[in-house]
Amino acid sequence: MQSRTPTDSRTILTDLVLPSETNPLNNLFGGELLARMDRAASIAARRHSRSIVVTASVNHVAFNKAIPLGSVVTVEAAVSRAFKSSMEIFIDVWVEDRESGKRSKANEAIYTFVAVDETGSPINVPALVPETELEKSRFDAALRRKQLSLVLAGKMKPKDATELKALFKD
Amino acid sequence: MQSRTPTDSRTILTDLVLPSETNPLNNLFGGELLARMDRAASIAARRHSRSIVVTASVNHVAFNKAIPLGSVVTVEAAVSRAFKSSMEIFIDVWVEDRESGKRSKANEAIYTFVAVDETGSPINVPALVPETELEKSRFDAALRRKQLSLVLAGKMKPKDATELKALFKD
Amino acid sequence: MQSRTPTDSRTILTDLVLPSETNPLNNLFGGELLARMDRAASIAARRHSRSIVVTASVNHVAFNKAIPLGSVVTVEAAVSRAFKSSMEIFIDVWVEDRESGKRSKANEAIYTFVAVDETGSPINVPALVPETELEKSRFDAALRRKQLSLVLAGKMKPKDATELKALFKD
Amino acid sequence: MQSRTPTDSRTILTDLVLPSETNPLNNLFGGELLARMDRAASIAARRHSRSIVVTASVNHVAFNKAIPLGSVVTVEAAVSRAFKSSMEIFIDVWVEDRESGKRSKANEAIYTFVAVDETGSPINVPALVPETELEKSRFDAALRRKQLSLVLAGKMKPKDATELKALFKD
Amino acid sequence: MQSRTPTDSRTILTDLVLPSETNPLNNLFGGELLARMDRAASIAARRHSRSIVVTASVNHVAFNKAIPLGSVVTVEAAVSRAFKSSMEIFIDVWVEDRESGKRSKANEAIYTFVAVDETGSPINVPALVPETELEKSRFDAALRRKQLSLVLAGKMKPKDATELKALFKD
Amino acid sequence: MQSRTPTDSRTILTDLVLPSETNPLNNLFGGELLARMDRAASIAARRHSRSIVVTASVNHVAFNKAIPLGSVVTVEAAVSRAFKSSMEIFIDVWVEDRESGKRSKANEAIYTFVAVDETGSPINVPALVPETELEKSRFDAALRRKQLSLVLAGKMKPKDATELKALFKD
Repeated sequence: MQSRTPTDSRTILTDLVLPSETNPLNNLFGGELLARMDRAASIAARRHSRSIVVTASVNHVAFNKAIPLGSVVTVEAAVSRAFKSSMEIFIDVWVEDRESGKRSKANEAIYTFVAVDETGSPINVPALVPETELEKSRFDAALRRKQLSLVLAGKMKPKDATELKALFKD
Repeated sequence: MQSRTPTDSRTILTDLVLPSETNPLNNLFGGELLARMDRAASIAARRHSRSIVVTASVNHVAFNKAIPLGSVVTVEAAVSRAFKSSMEIFIDVWVEDRESGKRSKANEAIYTFVAVDETGSPINVPALVPETELEKSRFDAALRRKQLSLVLAGKMKPKDATELKALFKD
Repeated sequence: MQSRTPTDSRTILTDLVLPSETNPLNNLFGGELLARMDRAASIAARRHSRSIVVTASVNHVAFNKAIPLGSVVTVEAAVSRAFKSSMEIFIDVWVEDRESGKRSKANEAIYTFVAVDETGSPINVPALVPETELEKSRFDAALRRKQLSLVLAGKMKPKDATELKALFKD
Repeated sequence: MQSRTPTDSRTILTDLVLPSETNPLNNLFGGELLARMDRAASIAARRHSRSIVVTASVNHVAFNKAIPLGSVVTVEAAVSRAFKSSMEIFIDVWVEDRESGKRSKANEAIYTFVAVDETGSPINVPALVPETELEKSRFDAALRRKQLSLVLAGKMKPKDATELKALFKD
Repeated sequence: MQSRTPTDSRTILTDLVLPSETNPLNNLFGGELLARMDRAASIAARRHSRSIVVTASVNHVAFNKAIPLGSVVTVEAAVSRAFKSSMEIFIDVWVEDRESGKRSKANEAIYTFVAVDETGSPINVPALVPETELEKSRFDAALRRKQLSLVLAGKMKPKDATELKALFKD
Repeated sequence: MQSRTPTDSRTILTDLVLPSETNPLNNLFGGELLARMDRAASIAARRHSRSIVVTASVNHVAFNKAIPLGSVVTVEAAVSRAFKSSMEIFIDVWVEDRESGKRSKANEAIYTFVAVDETGSPINVPALVPETELEKSRFDAALRRKQLSLVLAGKMKPKDATELKALFKD
């Protein structure tokens, strides 16, 4: 299988924040943003694997910045590392100011998808070859995140998570 | 402020999986489940704090089990630990079989909400007092998760995360 | 077939009132509440019968209390009496005050569902055995309501509706 | 206030049955039809009263006929009788066959709306003057239904419901 | 095949403007109106052809009049001319004032639909026979519009568009 | 006011076709695509003008290619010419094949938006400077389309539409 780059799967979903998606402070519901990011990430995973994909997990997501009603929100997703049949997708969310046109980072999130066939069984995916500095740094961090995920799921013993142990030693 | 128990905030959202919420394999979209869990968790946080609440973060969520079209899904959320103005919400998701009536665990997730006033500034919330064994175990684990979250956000140095260091030492 | 209790079918759907569901006074549309109650009642009917169910009728519903935007609404449905293939579902609707945490009754409604097979033909359902005083009183009243429903549909002569005649005699 | 006829308020809402509105048998959910009828009835009540209106009650509704996915459904609503500030709305629902073009009655329903001012207080509405035989017969029956509704709500004693007593006497 | 009149296909879709359909000025989004008109027009095309229909094109549509949140909007669609397997649908949109009850024209639009069989292949449709003056005038203009459409799509040379040439000659 | 290029306003909205958006042939409804294009075009117009914008008109749109359920659809919108307070937006729609990854053109559409202030009054917008060959050719054609639009609206006499007359002369 031919390897692919993050550019091959990059997916942009620009849309408005509508009244039916806002909380009592008139900001976008966290849950709605999670659903939008899932749709964009699933398209990126599908572009990389050219197969049906299903959400396997969502990494820690922090909502640092409120996104008000009427905002233009850009969700940008690309595969950051491919494993056997799973893919890590890195998602950047920007919101832009109408008058100045400035766009600022509102969120980051990391989802994992698995490529499956018509019966739902996992299938292999192409390797990912990062190109830019940012892509390379995300590619490297993905291994640490995978270990953390396995530890949290009880599928790897903390003492075998070599990347993580390095992080927490004095 | 009077402390509260997990029972005080327990929120149950039982609903069907509709055709507009399913992926090409006819299973519930991961993103839709994330949005439902966010709504249930926000109600639990509001019941505990009796104030407006906003999503602060979503912990790692794994989607282990596909939830088919037409399923009855029960999302059950309760506050698992309260900090100064933030609350950790533990969410259990069950799906039930129509013919046998058996319900099985489909997912777990942990969201953090912050209580705010009308201007969006954080306000204090009551303490949480766990009662059952399960509630006590989730209460204790919440501190480790908070440290992990602070480390991942770069707001705490790994070497100060005493609970985590204990976890990763040989 | 083994009989069941109202507890076996009790279904709780707690959710927020969103902006897209409100009328010009910023209160929940009557029609939206009818649809939510139908979903909760259909799950209760399905839990009792463990089969596919379809709405057969809606009894008289009064909207006594406006439910404002942003409210937390709890819809609680349980089978109140089972007939041959039909089930009466009693639905209680509560709304709660954010600051005091008090919840007050907003509505009651009664729906009837029929259990059907994959071709849509009616099938038998288990008997219902009420347990509490409230459940017994609703169980008894269900027979009067069924007679009223048959009279209104022209399927029973008023003079044969013994339960109703007792009600209207001097 | 000038009186109005049913023609003045007649409201027609013709629309398709979409996949997101169907149950496991691929028929329109009862709850969705209740919501559509509520929207059509609210427009009829508003046309009669020329004010804001809110749903007060839904009379007994029977779902005699399944309405399959892709059907064209016509909901036709008109005021059938006006009281002080409330209006009874009679709703007829038709479904049509694509190939023959024949339309057949799928449902009838009766909703009651109240006219209110901007603060939600009831205001007076014009009288209704029925014109056709059908309109006159519905106008007459509306009084019996109002008495029944008051009896069921415990606001009128059965022995004072003169119209109903006549119905149930031997 | 028996010919039909515009009355045979006339379709009325009266509905409210809900909060989730409005732009930052609290008026109905242009895109939402386009979608409503498409649904009404597709029903008119289906009533004329008694077959499955698909949108082929949308003629120039001007949005001259803002339609505020809470408005009652009436979309009225009827076939204006039938060709071999395509039908032109003329759509009139009215909005009405709550207090005066006056309704005023908000938009006009022209859609073209094609009748197809289950495999999506075009099939023949009945002829349309206009009856009123307005219907006759729209019937005549439809031919000019069809030529313009063919010219714009590069399927007819401008010099062969006899109806259009007449329009633009001095 | 500083002029802008099409790149400054280019807006990409990539999303899936969901079951609730499809017709009886399981293809995307024309009306849903019109609504998506309107949202993408409104964001492009807003990025160019940095003001509130409202849909003024939709040019002729042809639906040449069915877009099946589950497709990934990319809507790409950019300002093609700016007039005094109005902007023409050119929209390209692509659909991509999951297995080959090939994307093919599904539609083109042209919308016109007007920039307005908070009261809805038109305000001036920056000039557009096209850069690529394609952008220049669309910029030139925009003037012919504007004349055609004015003629169709009865606001310009056909004989004054110099650009159009050239097109239709022998």
